[in-house]
Amino acid sequence: MAQRSGGSQISSVKHPVVQLARRLSRPAERAEHDRFLIEGPNSVQAALDAGVDVDTLLSTGAAARRHAGLLAAAASAGTRVLQVTDQVMASIAPTVTPQGVVAIAPGVTRPLERLPAGASFVCVLDGVADPGNLGTVLRAADAAGADALVTTAGSVHADSPKAVRAAAGSLFHLPVFDAVPWPVARDACRAAGLRLVGADAHAGVGLDAAGLDGPVALVLGSETHGLSSAAKADCDQLVSLPVYGRAESLNLAAAAAILLYEVARRHRDKGAGA
Amino acid sequence: MAQRSGGSQISSVKHPVVQLARRLSRPAERAEHDRFLIEGPNSVQAALDAGVDVDTLLSTGAAARRHAGLLAAAASAGTRVLQVTDQVMASIAPTVTPQGVVAIAPGVTRPLERLPAGASFVCVLDGVADPGNLGTVLRAADAAGADALVTTAGSVHADSPKAVRAAAGSLFHLPVFDAVPWPVARDACRAAGLRLVGADAHAGVGLDAAGLDGPVALVLGSETHGLSSAAKADCDQLVSLPVYGRAESLNLAAAAAILLYEVARRHRDKGAGA
Repeated sequence: MAQRSGGSQISSVKHPVVQLARRLSRPAERAEHDRFLIEGPNSVQAALDAGVDVDTLLSTGAAARRHAGLLAAAASAGTRVLQVTDQVMASIAPTVTPQGVVAIAPGVTRPLERLPAGASFVCVLDGVADPGNLGTVLRAADAAGADALVTTAGSVHADSPKAVRAAAGSLFHLPVFDAVPWPVARDACRAAGLRLVGADAHAGVGLDAAGLDGPVALVLGSETHGLSSAAKADCDQLVSLPVYGRAESLNLAAAAAILLYEVARRHRDKGAGA
Repeated sequence: MAQRSGGSQISSVKHPVVQLARRLSRPAERAEHDRFLIEGPNSVQAALDAGVDVDTLLSTGAAARRHAGLLAAAASAGTRVLQVTDQVMASIAPTVTPQGVVAIAPGVTRPLERLPAGASFVCVLDGVADPGNLGTVLRAADAAGADALVTTAGSVHADSPKAVRAAAGSLFHLPVFDAVPWPVARDACRAAGLRLVGADAHAGVGLDAAGLDGPVALVLGSETHGLSSAAKADCDQLVSLPVYGRAESLNLAAAAAILLYEVARRHRDKGAGA
Protein backbone atom coordinates (compact mmCIF):
# COMPACT_ATOMS: atom_id res chain seq x y z
CA MET A 1 0.00 0.00 0.00
CA ALA A 2 1.17 3.48 -0.79
CA GLN A 3 1.68 5.76 2.21
CA ARG A 4 0.27 9.13 1.40
CA SER A 5 0.74 12.58 2.89
CA GLY A 6 -0.13 16.06 1.69
CA GLY A 7 -3.25 15.02 -0.26
CA SER A 8 -2.55 12.52 -3.04
CA GLN A 9 1.25 12.53 -2.91
CA ILE A 10 2.87 9.11 -3.16
CA SER A 11 5.34 8.87 -0.30
CA SER A 12 6.20 5.17 -0.42
CA VAL A 13 8.95 3.74 -2.57
CA LYS A 14 6.89 0.53 -2.53
CA HIS A 15 4.10 2.04 -4.62
CA PRO A 16 3.85 -0.19 -7.72
CA VAL A 17 4.41 2.70 -10.16
CA VAL A 18 7.47 3.85 -8.20
CA GLN A 19 8.83 0.31 -8.15
CA LEU A 20 8.32 0.03 -11.91
CA ALA A 21 10.08 3.36 -12.49
CA ARG A 22 13.03 2.23 -10.38
CA ARG A 23 13.28 -1.05 -12.28
CA LEU A 24 13.46 0.73 -15.62
CA SER A 25 17.03 1.82 -14.95
CA ARG A 26 17.95 -1.76 -15.92
CA PRO A 27 17.98 -2.78 -19.61
CA ALA A 28 16.44 -6.22 -18.94
CA GLU A 29 13.51 -4.64 -17.12
CA ARG A 30 12.99 -2.14 -19.91
CA ALA A 31 12.87 -4.98 -22.41
CA GLU A 32 10.54 -7.08 -20.24
CA HIS A 33 8.06 -4.24 -19.64
CA ASP A 34 8.59 -2.56 -23.02
CA ARG A 35 8.76 0.68 -21.06
CA PHE A 36 11.49 3.25 -20.43
CA LEU A 37 12.04 6.39 -18.34
CA ILE A 38 12.01 9.95 -19.63
CA GLU A 39 13.62 12.38 -17.17
CA GLY A 40 13.18 16.12 -17.00
CA PRO A 41 10.45 18.45 -18.25
CA ASN A 42 12.07 19.22 -21.62
CA SER A 43 12.39 15.59 -22.64
CA VAL A 44 8.87 14.77 -21.44
CA GLN A 45 7.53 17.74 -23.40
CA ALA A 46 9.42 16.55 -26.50
CA ALA A 47 7.86 13.09 -26.12
CA LEU A 48 4.34 14.56 -25.85
CA ASP A 49 5.02 16.88 -28.81
CA ALA A 50 6.10 13.87 -30.87
CA GLY A 51 2.88 12.04 -30.00
CA VAL A 52 4.48 9.44 -27.71
CA ASP A 53 1.72 7.74 -25.70
CA VAL A 54 3.23 8.48 -22.27
CA ASP A 55 1.72 6.18 -19.61
CA THR A 56 2.53 8.00 -16.42
CA LEU A 57 4.10 11.26 -15.34
CA LEU A 58 5.54 11.51 -11.84
CA SER A 59 6.40 14.90 -10.40
CA THR A 60 7.29 16.43 -7.06
CA GLY A 61 4.99 19.09 -5.62
CA ALA A 62 7.42 21.87 -6.45
CA ALA A 63 7.89 20.62 -10.02
CA ALA A 64 4.12 20.32 -10.45
CA ARG A 65 3.78 24.03 -9.70
CA ARG A 66 6.77 24.96 -11.89
CA HIS A 67 5.64 22.88 -14.85
CA ALA A 68 1.85 23.20 -14.55
CA GLY A 69 1.47 23.56 -18.33
CA LEU A 70 3.36 20.34 -18.98
CA LEU A 71 1.24 18.43 -16.45
CA ALA A 72 -1.96 19.77 -17.99
CA ALA A 73 -0.78 18.85 -21.49
CA ALA A 74 0.11 15.35 -20.30
CA ALA A 75 -3.23 14.88 -18.56
CA SER A 76 -5.18 15.99 -21.62
CA ALA A 77 -3.13 13.57 -23.75
CA GLY A 78 -4.39 10.75 -21.51
CA THR A 79 -1.26 10.41 -19.34
CA ARG A 80 -1.79 9.46 -15.70
CA VAL A 81 -0.26 12.30 -13.65
CA LEU A 82 0.89 11.48 -10.11
CA GLN A 83 2.66 13.49 -7.45
CA VAL A 84 5.46 11.97 -5.40
CA THR A 85 7.53 13.20 -2.48
CA ASP A 86 11.06 14.50 -3.04
CA GLN A 87 12.38 11.33 -1.40
CA VAL A 88 10.45 9.09 -3.77
CA MET A 89 11.68 11.13 -6.75
CA ALA A 90 15.26 10.81 -5.48
CA SER A 91 14.81 7.03 -5.19
CA ILE A 92 13.79 6.83 -8.85
CA ALA A 93 16.61 8.97 -10.24
CA PRO A 94 19.29 9.02 -7.55
CA THR A 95 22.32 10.03 -9.60
CA VAL A 96 20.85 12.70 -11.84
CA THR A 97 18.86 15.88 -11.56
CA PRO A 98 15.56 15.11 -13.28
CA GLN A 99 14.20 18.48 -12.13
CA GLY A 100 11.38 16.73 -10.31
CA VAL A 101 9.74 15.24 -13.41
CA VAL A 102 9.97 11.65 -14.65
CA ALA A 103 7.70 9.83 -17.10
CA ILE A 104 7.14 6.19 -18.00
CA ALA A 105 6.52 5.57 -21.70
CA PRO A 106 6.21 2.58 -24.04
CA GLY A 107 9.49 1.68 -25.74
CA VAL A 108 10.32 3.64 -28.88
CA THR A 109 13.41 1.76 -30.03
CA ARG A 110 12.83 -1.34 -32.15
CA PRO A 111 14.62 -4.24 -33.80
CA LEU A 112 15.55 -3.69 -37.43
CA GLU A 113 13.79 -5.49 -40.25
CA ARG A 114 14.16 -2.88 -42.94
CA LEU A 115 14.99 0.80 -43.01
CA PRO A 116 12.23 3.38 -43.63
CA ALA A 117 11.28 3.66 -47.30
CA GLY A 118 13.29 6.35 -49.07
CA ALA A 119 15.98 6.55 -46.36
CA SER A 120 19.06 8.16 -47.90
CA PHE A 121 21.05 9.12 -44.80
CA VAL A 122 21.45 6.73 -41.87
CA CYS A 123 23.84 6.78 -38.92
CA VAL A 124 25.07 3.42 -37.57
CA LEU A 125 26.75 3.25 -34.15
CA ASP A 126 28.81 0.08 -33.88
CA GLY A 127 29.63 -0.89 -30.29
CA VAL A 128 29.28 2.49 -28.62
CA ALA A 129 29.71 2.16 -24.85
CA ASP A 130 28.88 5.56 -23.39
CA PRO A 131 25.17 6.47 -23.21
CA GLY A 132 25.98 10.20 -23.17
CA ASN A 133 27.88 9.81 -26.42
CA LEU A 134 25.04 7.82 -27.94
CA GLY A 135 22.48 10.47 -27.00
CA THR A 136 24.69 13.30 -28.25
CA VAL A 137 25.22 11.55 -31.60
CA LEU A 138 21.47 10.90 -31.89
CA ARG A 139 20.83 14.60 -31.32
CA ALA A 140 23.42 15.55 -33.95
CA ALA A 141 22.01 12.98 -36.41
CA ASP A 142 18.57 14.51 -35.92
CA ALA A 143 19.94 18.04 -36.45
CA ALA A 144 21.81 16.92 -39.58
CA GLY A 145 18.60 15.49 -41.01
CA ALA A 146 19.42 11.76 -40.80
CA ASP A 147 16.52 9.41 -41.56
CA ALA A 148 17.34 6.84 -38.86
CA LEU A 149 19.85 5.77 -36.24
CA VAL A 150 20.96 2.14 -35.91
CA THR A 151 22.97 0.80 -32.96
CA THR A 152 24.61 -2.60 -33.18
CA ALA A 153 24.29 -5.43 -30.67
CA GLY A 154 26.74 -4.80 -27.84
CA SER A 155 26.23 -1.04 -27.92
CA VAL A 156 24.73 0.71 -24.92
CA HIS A 157 20.95 1.18 -25.30
CA ALA A 158 19.40 4.33 -26.70
CA ASP A 159 16.63 4.17 -24.10
CA SER A 160 19.02 4.18 -21.11
CA PRO A 161 18.39 7.24 -18.92
CA LYS A 162 21.67 9.02 -19.73
CA ALA A 163 21.20 8.49 -23.47
CA VAL A 164 17.61 9.76 -23.35
CA ARG A 165 18.78 12.86 -21.51
CA ALA A 166 21.68 13.58 -23.87
CA ALA A 167 19.42 13.08 -26.90
CA ALA A 168 17.35 16.07 -25.72
CA GLY A 169 14.16 14.87 -27.42
CA SER A 170 15.75 13.51 -30.59
CA LEU A 171 14.87 9.93 -29.52
CA PHE A 172 11.30 10.89 -30.47
CA HIS A 173 12.19 12.57 -33.78
CA LEU A 174 13.66 9.79 -35.90
CA PRO A 175 13.41 5.99 -35.88
CA VAL A 176 16.03 4.32 -33.66
CA PHE A 177 16.81 0.67 -34.32
CA ASP A 178 18.49 -0.81 -31.27
CA ALA A 179 20.84 -3.76 -30.63
CA VAL A 180 20.93 -4.82 -34.28
CA PRO A 181 23.45 -7.56 -35.16
CA TRP A 182 26.03 -6.03 -37.53
CA PRO A 183 25.20 -8.34 -40.47
CA VAL A 184 21.52 -7.36 -40.20
CA ALA A 185 22.41 -3.66 -40.11
CA ARG A 186 24.77 -4.09 -43.07
CA ASP A 187 22.22 -5.98 -45.16
CA ALA A 188 19.43 -3.50 -44.38
CA CYS A 189 21.66 -0.59 -45.46
CA ARG A 190 22.62 -2.38 -48.66
CA ALA A 191 19.00 -3.33 -49.39
CA ALA A 192 18.12 0.36 -49.07
CA GLY A 193 20.83 1.24 -51.59
CA LEU A 194 23.06 3.00 -49.05
CA ARG A 195 26.82 3.20 -49.38
CA LEU A 196 28.51 2.05 -46.15
CA VAL A 197 31.09 4.67 -45.16
CA GLY A 198 32.99 3.94 -41.96
CA ALA A 199 34.95 6.39 -39.83
CA ASP A 200 38.44 5.08 -39.11
CA ALA A 201 41.30 7.19 -37.77
CA HIS A 202 43.79 5.10 -39.76
CA ALA A 203 42.02 5.35 -43.12
CA GLY A 204 43.98 6.87 -45.98
CA VAL A 205 40.93 8.62 -47.45
CA GLY A 206 40.24 12.06 -46.01
CA LEU A 207 36.93 13.87 -45.68
CA ASP A 208 37.15 15.67 -49.04
CA ALA A 209 37.62 12.46 -51.03
CA ALA A 210 34.93 10.57 -49.11
CA GLY A 211 31.99 9.35 -51.16
CA LEU A 212 29.21 11.02 -49.22
CA ASP A 213 27.21 12.63 -52.00
CA GLY A 214 24.74 9.82 -52.61
CA PRO A 215 22.62 7.74 -50.24
CA VAL A 216 24.91 6.85 -47.36
CA ALA A 217 25.11 4.98 -44.07
CA LEU A 218 27.74 6.60 -41.86
CA VAL A 219 29.21 3.92 -39.58
CA LEU A 220 30.95 4.99 -36.34
CA GLY A 221 32.75 2.64 -33.94
CA SER A 222 33.35 2.53 -30.20
CA GLU A 223 35.12 5.25 -28.24
CA THR A 224 38.12 3.11 -27.43
CA HIS A 225 38.32 0.45 -30.14
CA GLY A 226 36.83 2.17 -33.19
CA LEU A 227 35.00 0.07 -35.76
CA SER A 228 34.71 -3.68 -35.24
CA SER A 229 36.78 -5.70 -37.68
CA ALA A 230 33.57 -7.02 -39.25
CA ALA A 231 32.25 -3.51 -39.89
CA LYS A 232 35.63 -2.40 -41.19
CA ALA A 233 35.73 -5.28 -43.66
CA ASP A 234 32.17 -4.69 -44.88
CA CYS A 235 32.30 -0.91 -45.38
CA ASP A 236 32.48 0.33 -48.98
CA GLN A 237 34.87 3.06 -47.87
CA LEU A 238 36.78 4.02 -44.72
CA VAL A 239 37.43 7.72 -44.13
CA SER A 240 39.45 9.61 -41.56
CA LEU A 241 39.03 13.11 -40.19
CA PRO A 242 42.10 15.29 -40.70
CA VAL A 243 43.94 16.32 -37.53
CA TYR A 244 45.68 19.67 -37.98
CA GLY A 245 47.05 20.08 -34.46
CA ARG A 246 48.66 17.72 -31.93
CA ALA A 247 45.53 15.91 -30.72
CA GLU A 248 45.62 12.21 -31.57
CA SER A 249 41.94 12.16 -32.43
CA LEU A 250 38.57 13.70 -31.67
CA ASN A 251 36.09 12.27 -29.23
CA LEU A 252 33.29 10.21 -30.74
CA ALA A 253 30.51 12.77 -30.44
CA ALA A 254 32.66 15.54 -31.95
CA ALA A 255 33.82 13.36 -34.85
CA ALA A 256 30.26 12.18 -35.45
CA ALA A 257 28.94 15.75 -35.53
CA ILE A 258 31.54 16.82 -38.11
CA LEU A 259 30.88 13.78 -40.32
CA LEU A 260 27.08 14.03 -40.04
CA TYR A 261 27.17 17.69 -41.02
CA GLU A 262 29.51 16.92 -43.91
CA VAL A 263 26.95 14.44 -45.24
CA ALA A 264 24.18 17.02 -44.77
CA ARG A 265 26.23 19.63 -46.66
CA ARG A 266 26.97 17.27 -49.55
CA HIS A 267 23.37 16.13 -49.86
CA ARG A 268 22.19 19.72 -49.89
CA ASP A 269 24.89 20.87 -52.35
CA LYS A 270 24.59 17.96 -54.74
CA GLY A 271 20.85 17.47 -54.49
CA ALA A 272 21.39 13.77 -53.86
CA GLY A 273 19.41 11.61 -51.50
CA ALA A 274 15.74 10.83 -51.20
CA MET B 1 53.66 10.86 9.59
CA ALA B 2 52.78 8.61 6.73
CA GLN B 3 51.74 5.09 7.64
CA ARG B 4 53.39 2.68 5.32
CA SER B 5 52.77 -0.94 4.41
CA GLY B 6 54.04 -3.19 1.65
CA GLY B 7 57.44 -1.51 1.34
CA SER B 8 57.16 2.17 0.47
CA GLN B 9 53.43 2.34 -0.22
CA ILE B 10 51.66 5.36 1.24
CA SER B 11 48.65 4.04 3.13
CA SER B 12 47.58 7.16 5.02
CA VAL B 13 45.24 9.78 3.58
CA LYS B 14 47.04 12.21 5.93
CA HIS B 15 50.31 12.01 3.98
CA PRO B 16 51.05 15.61 2.88
CA VAL B 17 51.20 14.72 -0.83
CA VAL B 18 47.89 12.88 -0.60
CA GLN B 19 46.33 15.81 1.24
CA LEU B 20 47.59 18.19 -1.46
CA ALA B 21 46.23 15.95 -4.21
CA ARG B 22 42.82 15.86 -2.52
CA ARG B 23 42.76 19.62 -2.14
CA LEU B 24 43.42 20.15 -5.84
CA SER B 25 39.87 19.12 -6.69
CA ARG B 26 38.92 22.66 -5.55
CA PRO B 27 39.61 25.63 -7.86
CA ALA B 28 40.74 27.92 -5.00
CA GLU B 29 43.33 25.38 -3.87
CA ARG B 30 44.59 24.94 -7.44
CA ALA B 31 45.05 28.69 -7.71
CA GLU B 32 46.73 28.95 -4.30
CA HIS B 33 49.20 26.13 -4.96
CA ASP B 34 49.52 26.78 -8.72
CA ARG B 35 49.14 23.03 -9.12
CA PHE B 36 46.52 20.77 -10.68
CA LEU B 37 45.74 17.06 -10.99
CA ILE B 38 46.27 14.93 -14.06
CA GLU B 39 44.35 11.66 -13.88
CA GLY B 40 44.98 8.49 -15.83
CA PRO B 41 48.06 7.14 -17.61
CA ASN B 42 47.23 8.59 -21.04
CA SER B 43 46.90 12.16 -19.79
CA VAL B 44 50.03 11.87 -17.63
CA GLN B 45 51.94 10.52 -20.63
CA ALA B 46 50.67 13.42 -22.75
CA ALA B 47 51.89 15.88 -20.12
CA LEU B 48 55.36 14.29 -20.04
CA ASP B 49 55.45 14.19 -23.86
CA ALA B 50 54.67 17.90 -23.94
CA GLY B 51 57.50 18.64 -21.52
CA VAL B 52 55.30 19.52 -18.54
CA ASP B 53 57.45 19.52 -15.41
CA VAL B 54 55.29 17.02 -13.45
CA ASP B 55 56.06 17.24 -9.71
CA THR B 56 54.71 13.96 -8.44
CA LEU B 57 53.18 10.80 -9.83
CA LEU B 58 51.04 8.65 -7.53
CA SER B 59 50.12 5.14 -8.54
CA THR B 60 48.65 2.02 -6.99
CA GLY B 61 50.77 -1.13 -6.95
CA ALA B 62 48.75 -2.72 -9.73
CA ALA B 63 48.96 0.39 -11.89
CA ALA B 64 52.72 0.62 -11.28
CA ARG B 65 53.12 -2.85 -12.78
CA ARG B 66 50.72 -2.13 -15.65
CA HIS B 67 52.30 1.22 -16.53
CA ALA B 68 55.95 0.52 -15.71
CA GLY B 69 57.14 2.39 -18.80
CA LEU B 70 55.23 5.51 -17.82
CA LEU B 71 56.64 5.43 -14.29
CA ALA B 72 60.18 5.01 -15.62
CA ALA B 73 59.71 7.90 -18.06
CA ALA B 74 58.37 10.09 -15.27
CA ALA B 75 61.23 9.21 -12.95
CA SER B 76 63.85 9.95 -15.59
CA ALA B 77 62.14 13.32 -16.27
CA GLY B 78 62.70 14.20 -12.60
CA THR B 79 59.19 13.44 -11.35
CA ARG B 80 58.87 12.04 -7.83
CA VAL B 81 57.14 8.66 -8.20
CA LEU B 82 55.22 7.34 -5.19
CA GLN B 83 53.06 4.29 -4.63
CA VAL B 84 49.80 4.53 -2.71
CA THR B 85 47.25 1.96 -1.57
CA ASP B 86 44.00 1.50 -3.50
CA GLN B 87 42.16 3.20 -0.62
CA VAL B 88 44.41 6.27 -0.79
CA MET B 89 43.95 6.43 -4.58
CA ALA B 90 40.17 6.21 -4.13
CA SER B 91 40.31 9.07 -1.60
CA ILE B 92 42.04 11.28 -4.16
CA ALA B 93 39.72 10.56 -7.08
CA PRO B 94 36.55 9.11 -5.56
CA THR B 95 34.08 9.72 -8.39
CA VAL B 96 36.17 8.77 -11.37
CA THR B 97 38.29 5.92 -12.63
CA PRO B 98 41.82 7.31 -12.83
CA GLN B 99 43.12 3.81 -13.62
CA GLY B 100 45.38 3.97 -10.58
CA VAL B 101 47.53 6.86 -11.80
CA VAL B 102 47.33 10.51 -10.73
CA ALA B 103 49.95 13.24 -11.11
CA ILE B 104 50.44 16.68 -9.59
CA ALA B 105 51.77 19.30 -11.99
CA PRO B 106 52.38 23.06 -12.03
CA GLY B 107 49.47 25.02 -13.51
CA VAL B 108 49.46 25.33 -17.30
CA THR B 109 46.56 27.74 -17.74
CA ARG B 110 47.36 31.44 -17.48
CA PRO B 111 45.76 34.89 -17.46
CA LEU B 112 45.64 36.62 -20.82
CA GLU B 113 47.84 39.60 -21.65
CA ARG B 114 48.21 39.06 -25.35
CA LEU B 115 47.65 36.17 -27.72
CA PRO B 116 50.65 34.26 -29.14
CA ALA B 117 52.34 36.10 -32.00
CA GLY B 118 50.91 35.09 -35.36
CA ALA B 119 47.75 33.55 -33.91
CA SER B 120 45.17 33.35 -36.69
CA PHE B 121 42.66 30.91 -35.22
CA VAL B 122 41.50 31.17 -31.61
CA CYS B 123 38.56 29.58 -29.79
CA VAL B 124 36.86 31.59 -27.04
CA LEU B 125 34.50 29.85 -24.59
CA ASP B 126 32.22 32.40 -22.95
CA GLY B 127 30.60 31.16 -19.74
CA VAL B 128 30.82 27.43 -20.33
CA ALA B 129 29.58 25.53 -17.26
CA ASP B 130 30.33 21.87 -17.92
CA PRO B 131 33.97 20.76 -17.54
CA GLY B 132 33.43 17.78 -19.84
CA ASN B 133 32.22 20.13 -22.58
CA LEU B 134 35.19 22.43 -22.02
CA GLY B 135 37.65 19.55 -22.30
CA THR B 136 35.95 18.15 -25.38
CA VAL B 137 36.01 21.55 -27.11
CA LEU B 138 39.68 21.99 -26.18
CA ARG B 139 40.44 18.61 -27.76
CA ALA B 140 38.51 19.55 -30.92
CA ALA B 141 40.23 22.97 -31.06
CA ASP B 142 43.59 21.20 -30.86
CA ALA B 143 42.60 18.76 -33.61
CA ALA B 144 41.34 21.61 -35.81
CA GLY B 145 44.68 23.38 -35.42
CA ALA B 146 43.60 26.33 -33.26
CA ASP B 147 46.43 28.48 -31.90
CA ALA B 148 44.91 29.04 -28.45
CA LEU B 149 41.83 28.56 -26.28
CA VAL B 150 40.44 31.37 -24.14
CA THR B 151 37.78 30.88 -21.44
CA THR B 152 35.99 33.87 -19.98
CA ALA B 153 35.59 34.68 -16.30
CA GLY B 154 32.66 32.70 -14.94
CA SER B 155 33.42 29.67 -17.08
CA VAL B 156 34.38 26.41 -15.45
CA HIS B 157 38.17 25.97 -15.24
CA ALA B 158 40.19 24.14 -17.86
CA ASP B 159 42.33 22.55 -15.13
CA SER B 160 39.38 20.96 -13.30
CA PRO B 161 39.75 17.17 -13.23
CA LYS B 162 36.83 16.44 -15.58
CA ALA B 163 38.04 19.01 -18.11
CA VAL B 164 41.59 17.67 -18.01
CA ARG B 165 40.28 14.16 -18.61
CA ALA B 166 37.98 15.15 -21.50
CA ALA B 167 40.79 17.17 -23.12
CA ALA B 168 42.77 13.92 -23.49
CA GLY B 169 46.15 15.66 -23.48
CA SER B 170 45.17 18.74 -25.49
CA LEU B 171 45.56 20.93 -22.40
CA PHE B 172 49.30 20.46 -22.97
CA HIS B 173 49.24 21.09 -26.73
CA LEU B 174 48.08 24.68 -27.08
CA PRO B 175 48.07 27.73 -24.79
CA VAL B 176 44.94 27.96 -22.62
CA PHE B 177 44.06 31.37 -21.16
CA ASP B 178 41.70 30.90 -18.26
CA ALA B 179 39.08 33.08 -16.53
CA VAL B 180 39.67 36.06 -18.81
CA PRO B 181 37.21 38.96 -18.43
CA TRP B 182 35.28 39.28 -21.71
CA PRO B 183 36.55 42.82 -22.51
CA VAL B 184 40.15 41.61 -22.09
CA ALA B 185 39.50 38.62 -24.37
CA ARG B 186 37.79 40.84 -26.93
CA ASP B 187 40.59 43.42 -26.95
CA ALA B 188 43.32 40.77 -27.21
CA CYS B 189 41.56 39.19 -30.20
CA ARG B 190 41.16 42.57 -31.88
CA ALA B 191 44.77 43.51 -31.15
CA ALA B 192 45.82 40.29 -32.88
CA GLY B 193 43.76 41.22 -35.94
CA LEU B 194 41.16 38.48 -35.43
CA ARG B 195 37.57 38.77 -36.57
CA LEU B 196 35.19 37.93 -33.70
CA VAL B 197 32.64 35.41 -34.98
CA GLY B 198 30.07 34.27 -32.42
CA ALA B 199 27.87 31.17 -32.58
CA ASP B 200 24.23 32.06 -31.97
CA ALA B 201 21.31 29.75 -32.72
CA HIS B 202 19.15 32.77 -33.59
CA ALA B 203 21.58 34.41 -36.02
CA GLY B 204 20.36 34.98 -39.56
CA VAL B 205 23.76 34.21 -41.10
CA GLY B 206 24.36 30.53 -41.82
CA LEU B 207 27.63 28.65 -41.93
CA ASP B 208 28.24 29.14 -45.68
CA ALA B 209 27.98 32.93 -45.47
CA ALA B 210 30.08 33.18 -42.31
CA GLY B 211 33.30 35.16 -42.60
CA LEU B 212 35.72 32.49 -41.48
CA ASP B 213 38.35 32.66 -44.21
CA GLY B 214 40.72 35.12 -42.53
CA PRO B 215 42.16 35.29 -39.02
CA VAL B 216 39.26 34.50 -36.71
CA ALA B 217 38.26 34.11 -33.08
CA LEU B 218 35.35 31.69 -32.81
CA VAL B 219 33.25 32.64 -29.76
CA LEU B 220 30.96 30.02 -28.20
CA GLY B 221 28.56 30.64 -25.31
CA SER B 222 27.18 28.59 -22.44
CA GLU B 223 25.24 25.36 -22.85
CA THR B 224 21.97 26.84 -21.59
CA HIS B 225 22.17 30.56 -22.22
CA GLY B 226 24.37 30.85 -25.30
CA LEU B 227 26.56 33.93 -25.71
CA SER B 228 26.49 36.65 -23.07
CA SER B 229 24.84 39.85 -24.24
CA ALA B 230 28.22 41.63 -24.04
CA ALA B 231 29.86 39.05 -26.31
CA LYS B 232 26.90 39.12 -28.68
CA ALA B 233 27.13 42.91 -28.97
CA ASP B 234 30.91 42.89 -29.53
CA CYS B 235 31.13 40.14 -32.15
CA ASP B 236 31.77 41.23 -35.73
CA GLN B 237 29.38 38.55 -36.95
CA LEU B 238 26.95 36.06 -35.43
CA VAL B 239 26.43 32.79 -37.25
CA SER B 240 24.06 29.88 -36.74
CA LEU B 241 24.41 26.23 -37.61
CA PRO B 242 21.67 24.96 -39.91
CA VAL B 243 19.29 22.39 -38.40
CA TYR B 244 17.92 20.06 -41.07
CA GLY B 245 15.87 17.77 -38.82
CA ARG B 246 13.62 18.30 -35.80
CA ALA B 247 16.29 18.86 -33.13
CA GLU B 248 16.13 22.35 -31.66
CA SER B 249 19.89 22.66 -31.56
CA LEU B 250 23.13 20.75 -31.16
CA ASN B 251 24.95 20.33 -27.89
CA LEU B 252 27.85 22.68 -27.31
CA ALA B 253 30.69 20.24 -28.00
CA ALA B 254 29.09 19.03 -31.23
CA ALA B 255 28.40 22.55 -32.48
CA ALA B 256 31.93 23.63 -31.55
CA ALA B 257 33.48 20.69 -33.41
CA ILE B 258 31.53 21.49 -36.59
CA LEU B 259 32.44 25.20 -36.44
CA LEU B 260 36.11 24.58 -35.57
CA TYR B 261 36.47 22.18 -38.49
CA GLU B 262 34.72 24.64 -40.80
CA VAL B 263 37.34 27.25 -39.87
CA ALA B 264 40.11 24.70 -40.43
CA ARG B 265 38.67 23.82 -43.86
CA ARG B 266 38.40 27.45 -44.92
CA HIS B 267 41.90 28.31 -43.76
CA ARG B 268 43.30 25.32 -45.62
CA ASP B 269 41.22 26.00 -48.79
CA LYS B 270 41.84 29.74 -48.94
CA GLY B 271 45.40 29.72 -47.65
CA ALA B 272 44.47 32.43 -45.15
CA GLY B 273 45.82 32.65 -41.64
CA ALA B 274 49.28 32.94 -40.18
